[in-house]
Amino acid sequence: MAEPATATQAAAPAVPQLKDELDIVIPTIRNLDFLEMWRPFFQPYHLIIVQDGDPSKTIKVPDGFDYELYNRNDINRILGPKASCISFKDSACRCFGYMVSKKKYIFTIDDDCFVAKDPSGKAINALEQHIKNLLSPSTPFFFNTLYDPFRDGADFVRGYPFSLREGVPTAVSHGLWLNIPDYDAPTQLVKPLERNTRFVDAVLTIPKGTLFPMCGMNLAFDRELIGPAMYFGLMGDGQPIGRYDDMWAGWCTKVICDHLGLGVKTGLPYIYHSKASNPFVNLRKEYKGIFWQEEIIPFFQQTVLPKDCTTVQKCYIELAKQVKEKLSKVDPYFDKLAEAMVTWIEAWDELNPTGSSVTNGKAK
Amino acid sequence: MAEPATATQAAAPAVPQLKDELDIVIPTIRNLDFLEMWRPFFQPYHLIIVQDGDPSKTIKVPDGFDYELYNRNDINRILGPKASCISFKDSACRCFGYMVSKKKYIFTIDDDCFVAKDPSGKAINALEQHIKNLLSPSTPFFFNTLYDPFRDGADFVRGYPFSLREGVPTAVSHGLWLNIPDYDAPTQLVKPLERNTRFVDAVLTIPKGTLFPMCGMNLAFDRELIGPAMYFGLMGDGQPIGRYDDMWAGWCTKVICDHLGLGVKTGLPYIYHSKASNPFVNLRKEYKGIFWQEEIIPFFQQTVLPKDCTTVQKCYIELAKQVKEKLSKVDPYFDKLAEAMVTWIEAWDELNPTGSSVTNGKAK
Repeated sequence: MAEPATATQAAAPAVPQLKDELDIVIPTIRNLDFLEMWRPFFQPYHLIIVQDGDPSKTIKVPDGFDYELYNRNDINRILGPKASCISFKDSACRCFGYMVSKKKYIFTIDDDCFVAKDPSGKAINALEQHIKNLLSPSTPFFFNTLYDPFRDGADFVRGYPFSLREGVPTAVSHGLWLNIPDYDAPTQLVKPLERNTRFVDAVLTIPKGTLFPMCGMNLAFDRELIGPAMYFGLMGDGQPIGRYDDMWAGWCTKVICDHLGLGVKTGLPYIYHSKASNPFVNLRKEYKGIFWQEEIIPFFQQTVLPKDCTTVQKCYIELAKQVKEKLSKVDPYFDKLAEAMVTWIEAWDELNPTGSSVTNGKAK
Repeated sequence: MAEPATATQAAAPAVPQLKDELDIVIPTIRNLDFLEMWRPFFQPYHLIIVQDGDPSKTIKVPDGFDYELYNRNDINRILGPKASCISFKDSACRCFGYMVSKKKYIFTIDDDCFVAKDPSGKAINALEQHIKNLLSPSTPFFFNTLYDPFRDGADFVRGYPFSLREGVPTAVSHGLWLNIPDYDAPTQLVKPLERNTRFVDAVLTIPKGTLFPMCGMNLAFDRELIGPAMYFGLMGDGQPIGRYDDMWAGWCTKVICDHLGLGVKTGLPYIYHSKASNPFVNLRKEYKGIFWQEEIIPFFQQTVLPKDCTTVQKCYIELAKQVKEKLSKVDPYFDKLAEAMVTWIEAWDELNPTGSSVTNGKAK
């Protein structure tokens, strides 16, 4: 059985990488005691805390952390009417943190995620591994059977085309979870006791053209390369669906990364996910998504973005248009979502005026 | 540093699975002393030994193994003029063993591959893991972030469409190598000391539409589902190229599996690869392949098989046609290879008359 690490002090690197280029975004409704355990790894970095729910509540942050905190009143004040695109009473609100960040990289983590141990018992510095993933190229065009060829002790195997060995920039690093796996409500109900104890020592690029279920619990990305696609949708209060915020962001992000020639990695690092959420509550939030994903996924699998979509913003606006055209028939919700996608980009560009028209990649 | 296992006796399963439904195919030019180590795992199974090189040489097989052995004279006698499609002085000759087998499953292994140990020090029964891989479904249409959902302790994660959870039949199980990795000559030359010591405890489906470098060193497949596509091409004696036999088979196989809706898995099991082949000799064999693969891989990535290709044989004949049309301009060798592909299917059907017109899958 996997257990969380208890001593993390000794495991922090001497010089924290990307210290001034990365923000840690944490959505929460409670005091952030979980940061104590992450202190040696996170303390050098700036935190952006997005407080969900009642804005009059005070969230306690352990001493010594450098942070800014936004509650709903702040979001409304900063975005005005455009605040409608930010979910309320749902961890989807975290994407507001991506928008207000001024850094190149984002790491986002849930407040029920603790430090995991590797098989040797060593505390895993999840952030350090995400940074490694993001700073080394991805290989989406051909599969390498020894996994990430850029890791120490690995390389491209025989038969891997040399013209593809340079790889492409990595936009997303998707980490995994020991202990409580990220299951949907039906699987939680059927397998209440299942725990993930398998430490798979691998990082790999998700091939071009392949979609995956992106979980927002332990996720890092390059904000300059892909930030505007990391919209977590309309979930929670007043919406017919929850728990699909990260999935939605993942589908959009993957399609846009494929179009722009950017890479998405999954695998290491693991965090220790401490507590399963209530499967009955989850089922209520999820059940429409369980139907809808059967149509949404083929939609994203068939999506083609035009050549002139050369920035993430242009891709995302085009995607919003196609969502309106093709998914509105599934449910009127997708009409609202498509409009919120446009609002999100408008708000993003308002808060990020200079970077907004940068060409982030090369359309394929 | 990875080391091979020394005691394998205790690790053999009580009842060997698929005992009468699986052949082990071994291409060799030397005495098969390496089988001693594999005895507890392989002895219950039938071996097909394909003797390469001088047919007058006697290959010694350790006592107690049930085997049939074919040398070049046997191949010529059995196939007559069609023997031209079977390579000589190259381990590509192993595919003759696939053709003469009468079993549903094939496991093929090189004679420099020993029993590896897992991180707990336990000898790995590679064959048992391949059988597990082949007998559980594959999931080529959507990526599961916790890897093979059919392994113990794993499942489909949140956001995986329920309609795809049945999976598809697995046609191929591609195993990996500890110690000497399967590198090309340039990488061998640049990194002569690199050893693979990373045990990655994962099996995963290679997504639909993604090609991979299939290595023939530690490979299993369902002969009924995909056998006729497992042609290892024209290599070695009299040919301008070597060490691309398994790569060729892998590209053809993957394209046909994708078309027929069959799965290809990679990852576990590991074998211990004992000895790097000579990189200078390898470079001579490989160098044309290193150029050619830059055109071959885009060719296979763009290949579309017509809907009426509903059997592996029909797919393979169509592929031969397209190779002739589109790769002959790369080198006249591909003209010869395309013809050999057709001869291979003719020989396969001659030796496998009843199974030859079975529909092996469903064209997508």
